[in-house]
Amino acid sequence: MPTITAFAASPDKGAGLARDMRVRWVLEEAGQPYDVRLVTFEEMKQPEYLALHPFAQIPAYEDEDVSLFESGAIVLHVAERHHCLLPEGEAAHARAISWMFAALNTVEPPIVERDNVRFFEADRSGQADRFALVDERIRTRLHQLAAALGDAEWLVGNFSAADILMVHAIRRLEGSGILEEYQVLMDYIARAQARPAYQRAFSAQYEVFQNLKSP
Amino acid sequence: MPTITAFAASPDKGAGLARDMRVRWVLEEAGQPYDVRLVTFEEMKQPEYLALHPFAQIPAYEDEDVSLFESGAIVLHVAERHHCLLPEGEAAHARAISWMFAALNTVEPPIVERDNVRFFEADRSGQADRFALVDERIRTRLHQLAAALGDAEWLVGNFSAADILMVHAIRRLEGSGILEEYQVLMDYIARAQARPAYQRAFSAQYEVFQNLKSP
Repeated sequence: MPTITAFAASPDKGAGLARDMRVRWVLEEAGQPYDVRLVTFEEMKQPEYLALHPFAQIPAYEDEDVSLFESGAIVLHVAERHHCLLPEGEAAHARAISWMFAALNTVEPPIVERDNVRFFEADRSGQADRFALVDERIRTRLHQLAAALGDAEWLVGNFSAADILMVHAIRRLEGSGILEEYQVLMDYIARAQARPAYQRAFSAQYEVFQNLKSP
Repeated sequence: MPTITAFAASPDKGAGLARDMRVRWVLEEAGQPYDVRLVTFEEMKQPEYLALHPFAQIPAYEDEDVSLFESGAIVLHVAERHHCLLPEGEAAHARAISWMFAALNTVEPPIVERDNVRFFEADRSGQADRFALVDERIRTRLHQLAAALGDAEWLVGNFSAADILMVHAIRRLEGSGILEEYQVLMDYIARAQARPAYQRAFSAQYEVFQNLKSP
């Protein structure tokens, strides 16, 4: 059975925004049971953990054959290993892989930068200006994403690994008020959240937070 | 023969920092000839191009079977199609895929953000502070990367697709003075640049800039 790592005390307080959520979700979609090893920020800096994840982050993934780090790599590995969540035909498969990288390299970075503004520039006079700059970048991407999605249910045919990464990346904007400007994306997220595998994954990570509050 | 897209007038003036360089490089490593279609910023916003690349960026890739966008997806596709540039064993293969995603989702974003500070915040009083914040984030990643690389020539065994993405991502720091603090990484970049495939790819994109200057 694979083991993944997750925050012992996630900064998101159980909102399911940490990247272990993506990996839990793909494992649930694949019907693959898994173990979780909770790690503290201090433990992630130790040599033993760095050998597993050179950038001292969660999630990492280990099974009897392989060890991976980076949520994108793990989601891809699980989808390939279980022959699920990636379209069959060569053209559709290539398109889904493109969307996976787009979620992580084009859509997510400005969204993460917004959290940097929020948490690390709160005491600066220029914070409002910085929000404006970053939010403009985010809106450009959301506009393009909504246009590409159009009336479709999912990014490429049936639900795929690309939807896991994309939905999770844009969910990080919850509470910002920006997502609400794009009804297409609100509906897209709602469809994803209605999936039983999403709900099982969400509950599992939420339980970690609950146990932390009342051990 | 595949066709890729690249900037008609690259903002980097032939420095090989635009993302078509990654795709040219992997195609050269694979010994795969390719055509290039140069596109203007205006052309990238048209419906015909958006159907190929929903985020109006370069590079996109098309061959007789598939169409891809996102440099990471294209590099992965070429490496898999040509059975080159990814290690053979399952464990090493998984590790190389992890490093590919790490290059794009963990190492590159703060480096791109540094260019945002440089180009879009030049008229702001807080620019120096912002450089300090972002550079600290970048140094954390370079330190971890240098530690993981250690005495090794490449990230996972022989030269792989992960090295293409990683070397190209950190090369964007050229001129900042930061790379020079990490001799391990300077040597790593130099090894990559000594590869004939790198040099052919670099020359090809440089020629576009030269032709632009003297058409």
